[in-house]
Amino acid sequence: MKTPADLPDSQDILAAAARIAPYAHVTPVLRSRGIDALAGCELHFKAEHLQRAGAFKFRGACNAVISLDEAQASAGVVTHSSGNHGAALALAARLRGIPCHVIVPEGAVRSKVAAIEAYGATLHSCAPNIAAREAACAQVQRDTGAELVHPYTDPRVIAGQGTAAMELLNAVQDLDLLVAPVGGGGLSSGTALAAAAFAPQCRVIGAEPSGASDTYDSLQRGERIARFVPDTICDGLRTLVGEPNFALLRRLRVQVVTADDDATVAAMRLFWQRAKQLIEPSSAVALAAVLAHREIFAGRRVGVILSGGNVDLDALPALFAR
Amino acid sequence: MKTPADLPDSQDILAAAARIAPYAHVTPVLRSRGIDALAGCELHFKAEHLQRAGAFKFRGACNAVISLDEAQASAGVVTHSSGNHGAALALAARLRGIPCHVIVPEGAVRSKVAAIEAYGATLHSCAPNIAAREAACAQVQRDTGAELVHPYTDPRVIAGQGTAAMELLNAVQDLDLLVAPVGGGGLSSGTALAAAAFAPQCRVIGAEPSGASDTYDSLQRGERIARFVPDTICDGLRTLVGEPNFALLRRLRVQVVTADDDATVAAMRLFWQRAKQLIEPSSAVALAAVLAHREIFAGRRVGVILSGGNVDLDALPALFAR
Repeated sequence: MKTPADLPDSQDILAAAARIAPYAHVTPVLRSRGIDALAGCELHFKAEHLQRAGAFKFRGACNAVISLDEAQASAGVVTHSSGNHGAALALAARLRGIPCHVIVPEGAVRSKVAAIEAYGATLHSCAPNIAAREAACAQVQRDTGAELVHPYTDPRVIAGQGTAAMELLNAVQDLDLLVAPVGGGGLSSGTALAAAAFAPQCRVIGAEPSGASDTYDSLQRGERIARFVPDTICDGLRTLVGEPNFALLRRLRVQVVTADDDATVAAMRLFWQRAKQLIEPSSAVALAAVLAHREIFAGRRVGVILSGGNVDLDALPALFAR
Repeated sequence: MKTPADLPDSQDILAAAARIAPYAHVTPVLRSRGIDALAGCELHFKAEHLQRAGAFKFRGACNAVISLDEAQASAGVVTHSSGNHGAALALAARLRGIPCHVIVPEGAVRSKVAAIEAYGATLHSCAPNIAAREAACAQVQRDTGAELVHPYTDPRVIAGQGTAAMELLNAVQDLDLLVAPVGGGGLSSGTALAAAAFAPQCRVIGAEPSGASDTYDSLQRGERIARFVPDTICDGLRTLVGEPNFALLRRLRVQVVTADDDATVAAMRLFWQRAKQLIEPSSAVALAAVLAHREIFAGRRVGVILSGGNVDLDALPALFAR
């Protein structure tokens, strides 16, 4: 059995795909002539904003919850999350009928917190920093015996996230490049694992907000930066890249590029207008990166993982007034 | 040959479907567990916001343009439109390679006017009332010989719009009810024709904004009201119902219900949040009507035609501040 310290591999992605198949959606792949023309390449968008609970996060959370043996499962699960992973874990736990605790940092997006509650999880509030999140999590583990499902370092989570790229590579042959947003690195490292195994000719590009470019900086430096104060509208990407995630991104030679928040809002608006799909800023950064680094993508066949669509509509006027 | 004064029938819908098949999308039918639970019925959403040019209007415009014989086509087409029909006709004309003129009333939604221009049509501005629109249209007809394609009274347009309901009825068996927004009545009368022919057990409900309820009032009174000053955020539904459209709605016993703008904004936000689909207010009024008239829909299998997704993002902050 794998422990949380192990790195997952492509077999784990295949196992995850089989495990989550009864619960997760096989999301569609979307095209837009207009955006292709603007970008100067052929874009295939994997629509994870149409995944259950509105983000790819359900894949990893579901894989972790379904992986638990009966004894582990009965004590429930716990995580810390600014939003989408919390909602995803809450939904996965509800589907299995087990308790779920979510540590929510103060200042998290209101609509995302409401979703976690709506799926029936028990909320615990903490200060908005990683130390406070981990301390609160450990306390719940001690109190309840719940199993920690870390939002991005857990190998069951990484393997689950890799199923999105696996589906995209199955649906669209001969992709040259695959772009995924980078936050904690669960999605990007899972994507890199899937590409290396199932489409070795396909390069993976991580898209990171300029204001949360710890992964970009870490790759430049050759070691993981452990301190960084993020400043970005991409609320799903404010976390530092995890250690196993960074190890995978390095080993699999993932290139990370950045896009600033203005470019991300412009890309989000473009996608809303042309594709009529409500993607969140943390998704739009991937399209922004394609538009900002045209030299990488020109004339290529490109997969883009749209990670989620949980936009806080109350915050829209402020976002659009930028 | 049918003249514009004729009323179309179900054969015209079948002919339109064959004519537009090489150009128009067969749009998907979307579901949402969450919205079904809130509405207390089973909702099947026909996603015309994913139609080319972002609205069902492409169906009717395309049918009209492809119907023209070579001599008529070479002189081009002309219409007056506050937005979606203009863009649809411009795109259809571009696909056939013929000129297109669009009379745009002052104050029309900026993003919709930009779309008309982007598709290569020649724009003509006029005062925002039906008399000025028709006068400007007649002038262009005299100057250029272009064929008028009226946005909702043209029988080729009505037949084309009916193909959306026909596809939905093919895709989803045994619908009890079909809901479509009502503006000029092109979509609603085409929908009623399709239902009467292909699913006679299925009742058609028209959804009209409370602030543009001329069709509701006309049906109550038994005759078409020719004067009405609309006041609604549903910019696609501010036109009075057309004469042939009203005749069809009466003959086919379509019931019209209303929803106010607050209910429409709430329904739009709900659909954005749950389905991650960007529908415009003129579409959301149909969902608002379902939620506001629960007694009609309770426990039923309901088709809802989401007419378009051309939201003016610059106007969003004002819309959301209501």
